[in-house]
Amino acid sequence: MPPEPLTPEDILRATEDVLRRYGPAKATVVDVARALGVSHGTVYRHFRTKTALREAVIRRWLHTTTGRLARIADGPGPAGERLEAWLRALFAAKRRKATDDPELFATYQVLVEEHREVVSEHIADLIGQLTTLIEAGRASGEFAPGPPDAETTAHAIHRATAVFHKPAHAAEWSRPETADALTTVIALLLRGLRA
Amino acid sequence: MPPEPLTPEDILRATEDVLRRYGPAKATVVDVARALGVSHGTVYRHFRTKTALREAVIRRWLHTTTGRLARIADGPGPAGERLEAWLRALFAAKRRKATDDPELFATYQVLVEEHREVVSEHIADLIGQLTTLIEAGRASGEFAPGPPDAETTAHAIHRATAVFHKPAHAAEWSRPETADALTTVIALLLRGLRA
Repeated sequence: MPPEPLTPEDILRATEDVLRRYGPAKATVVDVARALGVSHGTVYRHFRTKTALREAVIRRWLHTTTGRLARIADGPGPAGERLEAWLRALFAAKRRKATDDPELFATYQVLVEEHREVVSEHIADLIGQLTTLIEAGRASGEFAPGPPDAETTAHAIHRATAVFHKPAHAAEWSRPETADALTTVIALLLRGLRA
Repeated sequence: MPPEPLTPEDILRATEDVLRRYGPAKATVVDVARALGVSHGTVYRHFRTKTALREAVIRRWLHTTTGRLARIADGPGPAGERLEAWLRALFAAKRRKATDDPELFATYQVLVEEHREVVSEHIADLIGQLTTLIEAGRASGEFAPGPPDAETTAHAIHRATAVFHKPAHAAEWSRPETADALTTVIALLLRGLRA
């Protein structure tokens, strides 16, 4: 028994370990409970279903990226510089996840395919941050006004940088030319926003 | 026996049919010969190995896209309009292949994964066409001069539109919002090129 009361974070960390060890197809709530030295009823008191537990662990994984990005989106400085820093931080965060622990990254790819609604929330969160940045740049006169509206433009930027953040392209992320290409793409998009 | 002498095109068409019917893992040169009513030696006189035959059939499939695009790249009119038409034609050609005959599209996805050097040639061909278009726009003063050079900019445009032509994204191509997103992305990139 753990000396401190069990927190949701303890359960999520143990779930990630169990998923990594047994793989998404085999990992069960009983495995998580056993890893924590508690009954599976204790786990179910915090997460009512296996689906709820898996969704929470995916949200936690995705939030390590979006939390850092939110601080850039809401930070000081010209909108163009913040947008550039935001796009670079998104690429760096995804690349780090893919290269530092490829096995865990592959595990999460399987999980997100099975819980697309959590991914949709994540994308909506990113689009929201981009929209805020574009609105800030338009309000200060740094970016040209619409149409299209800021949210449509945010979607366009998200798609135009997909090769730098969509997991389907992860194999390209460690190549030096990919980082160089991101620099050129960002410069082109910023000129487009300012024009 | 066919009444006319067997052409390479006859063999490639038959190979595509055989690949579609048996799948890339099982289709053999003997199957192609049987479909044509000739000996496998006759097929080998035109294509010296199974690999050479498969590469030729992939090149033929990819060329149905690049041939049409080359006519747009080399056509008349302002570079910006040609670039827009070129990007729309690339998306339309890929979407048509993916939706008109999804089984054949899936077959070719397996083939291209096994013959990456043919894909590299294809991408080099597309980058060459984009580079020509950007150079034309810079020469006429329609696009801003570099740096970066036209080829680097061509690579950036190819990557920024990847979700509209890379097969990993094919599932999104039939959604109406994808065509709208392409319009916004093209407008943003063209403003960036002109700025």
